[in-house]
Order: sequence, then C-alpha cells, then structure tokens
Amino acid sequence: MYKKLFIPGPTHVREEILQAQTAPMIGHRAREYSDLQGRVTPKLQQLLYTQQPVFIYASSGTGVMEGSIRQAVRPGKRALVTVCGAFSKRWFEIAVGNGIPTDKVEVEWGLGFRPEQVVEALGQGDYDAVTITLNETSTGVQNPVAEIAAAVRAAYPDVVILVDAVSSMAGVKIEFDAWDIDCVLASSQKCFALPPGLTMAAVSERMFKRAGEVPGRGYYFDFLDMLKYYKKNQTPATPAISLIQALDKQMDDILAEGLENRWARHLEMAHLVQAWGRKYWKLFAAEEFLSPTVTTMVNTRGIVVGDLNKALAERGAMISNGYGDLKEKTFRIATMGDLTVADVRWLLGEIDDILGLE
Amino acid sequence: MYKKLFIPGPTHVREEILQAQTAPMIGHRAREYSDLQGRVTPKLQQLLYTQQPVFIYASSGTGVMEGSIRQAVRPGKRALVTVCGAFSKRWFEIAVGNGIPTDKVEVEWGLGFRPEQVVEALGQGDYDAVTITLNETSTGVQNPVAEIAAAVRAAYPDVVILVDAVSSMAGVKIEFDAWDIDCVLASSQKCFALPPGLTMAAVSERMFKRAGEVPGRGYYFDFLDMLKYYKKNQTPATPAISLIQALDKQMDDILAEGLENRWARHLEMAHLVQAWGRKYWKLFAAEEFLSPTVTTMVNTRGIVVGDLNKALAERGAMISNGYGDLKEKTFRIATMGDLTVADVRWLLGEIDDILGLE
Repeated sequence: MYKKLFIPGPTHVREEILQAQTAPMIGHRAREYSDLQGRVTPKLQQLLYTQQPVFIYASSGTGVMEGSIRQAVRPGKRALVTVCGAFSKRWFEIAVGNGIPTDKVEVEWGLGFRPEQVVEALGQGDYDAVTITLNETSTGVQNPVAEIAAAVRAAYPDVVILVDAVSSMAGVKIEFDAWDIDCVLASSQKCFALPPGLTMAAVSERMFKRAGEVPGRGYYFDFLDMLKYYKKNQTPATPAISLIQALDKQMDDILAEGLENRWARHLEMAHLVQAWGRKYWKLFAAEEFLSPTVTTMVNTRGIVVGDLNKALAERGAMISNGYGDLKEKTFRIATMGDLTVADVRWLLGEIDDILGLE
Repeated sequence: MYKKLFIPGPTHVREEILQAQTAPMIGHRAREYSDLQGRVTPKLQQLLYTQQPVFIYASSGTGVMEGSIRQAVRPGKRALVTVCGAFSKRWFEIAVGNGIPTDKVEVEWGLGFRPEQVVEALGQGDYDAVTITLNETSTGVQNPVAEIAAAVRAAYPDVVILVDAVSSMAGVKIEFDAWDIDCVLASSQKCFALPPGLTMAAVSERMFKRAGEVPGRGYYFDFLDMLKYYKKNQTPATPAISLIQALDKQMDDILAEGLENRWARHLEMAHLVQAWGRKYWKLFAAEEFLSPTVTTMVNTRGIVVGDLNKALAERGAMISNGYGDLKEKTFRIATMGDLTVADVRWLLGEIDDILGLE
C-alpha cells in the first residue's frame, strides 16, 4: 500500500510531478537543455526574492554544504558553526572532514539562536564564515535567520553567511537579497516536493569574491566555474535532466499557487500539528522557535513510535521517529511541500484513532 | 520532433526506463529503500565482476572523480594523471583544484597509453595514485586498462589506481576484481542508458585503507562513511531514489540481455561506425585504441557539423561535434547503452543521404 510521507524528506511527490520526469532525454549541451535551465532559473530567483544566480546541482544537499564551506574560508581563517541539533552539527563534521579550522557555538537542543549569541561567538576568533541552519530538522526549530544575518552583517561585514535551508526552501519565505546572506541551499525532496537528487543554491557576489580568494577550493561545487556555465544556461558537469524537468513543472505549480499562499499553507499545517502536539504530547522546540515545516513531539505517552508507524502504514501514511539520540524519545511530523491541510487533519485523525486519543 | 541521441551522453533512454522513475516516493531510511538498494547492488557487482562494494552517488561523475582522488593521496605524496584527451585531463584540473600535488604524463591525442609508459612515469615521483581514463570521449580512444593495471600493480603494489569509466561502464567488460584496480566510476547517462544524476563506483580494500590514511579527505564522497551505510543498504545522504528505481529496472534488462551479448552489441555498433568512418572520413583514434562506445571522425570533407546536425534533427537524430579544440575538426558518433545495430545503420544511412555519400 502506498504510504503518504509525512516524514521530513523525502516528502510526498504528486503523480504529475513524477510523470514530469519522463520527458524524452535531451543533450545537456543542446539548445533544448539551455532553454530548460533558462526557464527554470527565473522561477527559482522569484522563489528566493533574488537577482543573484540560483544554481542547480546534481547532488544531495550535503554535497553543496561541503562545497560552499570549502570556498568560504581563506587559508589562516576559521569557520564558525552554529549548532542546535543533529543537522546543524553536520556543518561542523563537514568542515572538520575538509581540514577547515572550525569552532562551534551551541545552544540547548529545542532552542534556536538569538542574533546576539551569534555575534558574540564571532568575536571569539578570526572568522571568514558562519553557518546557520534555517530549519533544524531533528528538533523542529526554526532559527531567525533574517535577524541573525542583519546582526552579523552589521558587526562583521566580510563574514560570509552560509544558510542550510534544506527543509525550508519553497515552504517558507527566504528573501535572499534583502537578508544579505551569501549562500542558501536546499535539496529537492523536502518543501520542493520533488524526488531527491537536486540541490538548489543561491550565491551572493560576496561569496563569489571569497571563492576567488580560496586556493584548492574544490572542483565539482566550485561556484566560479558554475557561474561561467550559468551564463549560457548550462552546468559544467552533466545536470540531472529528468529531475530538472520535474523541477520546471513544479515551479510552475508553486508560482500558480502563489508564494504567499504557499507560506501560509505551510504555517497552517504546522499550526494544526502544533496544537495537536500541545494537547496530547509536549512540543520539543521552544514556542518562539517553532518550525513551519517539521514539528517534533516529545513522546510523553511512552508509545513505541515504530508500532505507531506500522499501524499508520496499514492506513497509508508514514511519520518519522526522532533523529539520532532523540529516537523513541521524540517523533516528528513534517508538513512540507504539496501536503494539504486536509492531509494533515486526516493524518492526525488516524493517529488519534490508533492511539485512542480523543 | 524527438531526436534519438547518438551523442556521448546523455544517450537515448527508453520509454520503459523513463517510466520506471515514476514509482511512488519512499523514505530513504525506510525498509522499502533498503530493499531497493539491496536489490540493485548485487546486479551492479555482477556487471563489474566484483565482490567489492559498488556505491551509488547522487552526483555527476565529476563529483566522484574529485571525491576519489581526494582520498587517494596522503600528505606529502603525489598523484599522476595520464592524459590522452580533454576528459582524462579533467583529472588533472580536479586534483590541482583540490591542492593535491599532481603531475601528468601525456600521449599524443588519438593514442592511448601502453603499460610501460605508465610504469615509467610512476618512477619519476613519489606517487600514491594514478588515474586512467578507460574511454577518452573526446578522441574515441580506449586505454588497455587491464594491461596497464597489471603492469602498475607489479611495479608499484601500493599505488592506488583510479579509473574513469564514465563512457564505458555497462557497455564494455570491466573486471574490477581481476584487474585489481581500486576505484572505477561511471555516471548513469552513458552506457547505462539512464537519465543523468547518478554515479556508480566500485571501491577496493586498498582504496578503503588508503582513505583512512588521508586526513581532510572530504565528506560527501567519503568512501569510509559510505561503507558504513552501505552495510545496511543505505547511503549517508539522501539518495536519488527515482533514478535508482530506473537503475533497478535497467539492470534487470541489462542482465536479461546478457553481459557478453551487451559487450558484443556495443562492439558491433562501433565496428559499423568505424568501417563507415574509414570509408568516408578518417578515424581520429589509432586503430589499436579504437573505442567500442564512441568513434571520432576527422572531418576530412570539411563539412559544417552544426549543419549536419540540423539536417539530422529533422530526421530525428543527433550526433556530436568535436570536443573543445577538436570542434568542427572532428565529429563523434556514440554507440552506447540501448542503441541497436539497426539504429546505427539507420543513422549512417541518413547521414549518407544528407551528405550525398554513397
């Protein structure tokens, strides 16, 4: 039986989008491909409220996280990673795995960062870059990136701000130019509601300049090389064409829905889950940091999450266990992409029924 | 009008394979995905005549080339790149772009390497790794990797041998274990006849050991991290699920055709193009190095390749111009994947007709 996915990615992909992958194959140096990329890019720029290039990589988001931090830190300088959960911590593992001198600043899991905490941490070292996780998928926390970026920019104009928006982009408003951040990236299987395999990344002028100052910055994710090809609506390596065909169709649908409507729908779905979570469980994230795309419930009733998921499977749905150390202690419901308010009401009703909640 | 692709990737993808991408989305930490990866992997091992792990990356081949060379060279050691055309040269650009001390040994374009040339070059420095391009897509040259590897292994048992089989794998026989090479990789849009977006890579014990000795070896393509997840039929980052669904179906079809039949069909298609090339043009590659998957014709008749392609487009086909500096001086016909001998005969007939060859 098909299970509708309420997990924080891959999320449910509509049949029309799956079908959009089946367009006949085209050459990536042929005009047909340049036309495709040339059609998609302005829609992505509209989504991110930016005039800057938005790149499309054949990669999981992790690859572009790695690529971006490698070209953000000059020799002798350091990176600062803000950690509020398992996914924001990944930036630290990536940076260290690439031999980049890196420090982390942490808050208690369930909390997000306040701007002054990040600014203060940046004062402790000679930093070239700071990473921020817009939506921490393990804890269900959304960080106030606009406010953090404004504070960082005021205090440290040259620090490059890298934003992981993996589980947010296309579900919440990200104003790339207005926020004055330097790289924001997200993969396709979350709020874009596409199959996995693509990562979209907007890149600032400040980031391009910085990349030019970093020797040995890598090859596949090199933003300057990407920019060269971007100008002719191509990519240096072969792009994931069938997935981009699906992206093209999906961006039409996203813009047809209306961006403000899309943000409002995500918020409405999350509010439903949050209200339900407050009533029957406890929300893991602090109220002021609640995410519009994934809600983490503390398992106050001591249920076996795996058993709940088995029962849900028989009814055609799947939710997510807690991540890492939070497994069984928490569980998560994602409200991403093309899921509807009706879908969420249905899911919560099924859980109520299975667990005898009322 | 749909153009059947006789270019060296992306190649023609059959309708059934395009459709295989449309299976409903599944969670990458769910049993459904592990079942999928667990089904595909043994088929890939069969394809490569290996007991070693074969990894599936959400990436273009270039990404895994970069990933592999980064973890092949210990601090203080060097890499040797064998260059016989534009694509083999890419290894050099990648290594340098990652700050790896690297030398290259070159042969005239149109030629491949003899084992003794590679062994001799390895004697000139303190090398940890050597790269070989099985099929040089710009010149239509196939290198004798089995013989080169045997010679290298005899003289330098610890040198890691990295093989770019991007435009060969699934079209020619690659005996990973018997050849005793350390990493062989290929992307999905060539002889696999899949949409682009995946890269398959077999990895040896020697390579795993070496990776463990390289600090700062990177994250997304880290073979040791991949191995950990591979053991539970997962990947560390989200895999490109819809493309892997298509790979699963295609591997069934490849094995149903029979591997020896598949190699023979590729050879037969190439022989047709080669005979035609000798008759009306000149083959760019030396006879002893002719590739079974792409044939490069010297444009001895001074045609405008772009015009030929325009005329072919009206008849539903596309071939490839020369690559880089060889543009218009040469043109290329790829015989990859699921193209048939009848397809090739048809294509050559159309070109004969357009150009008035007889």
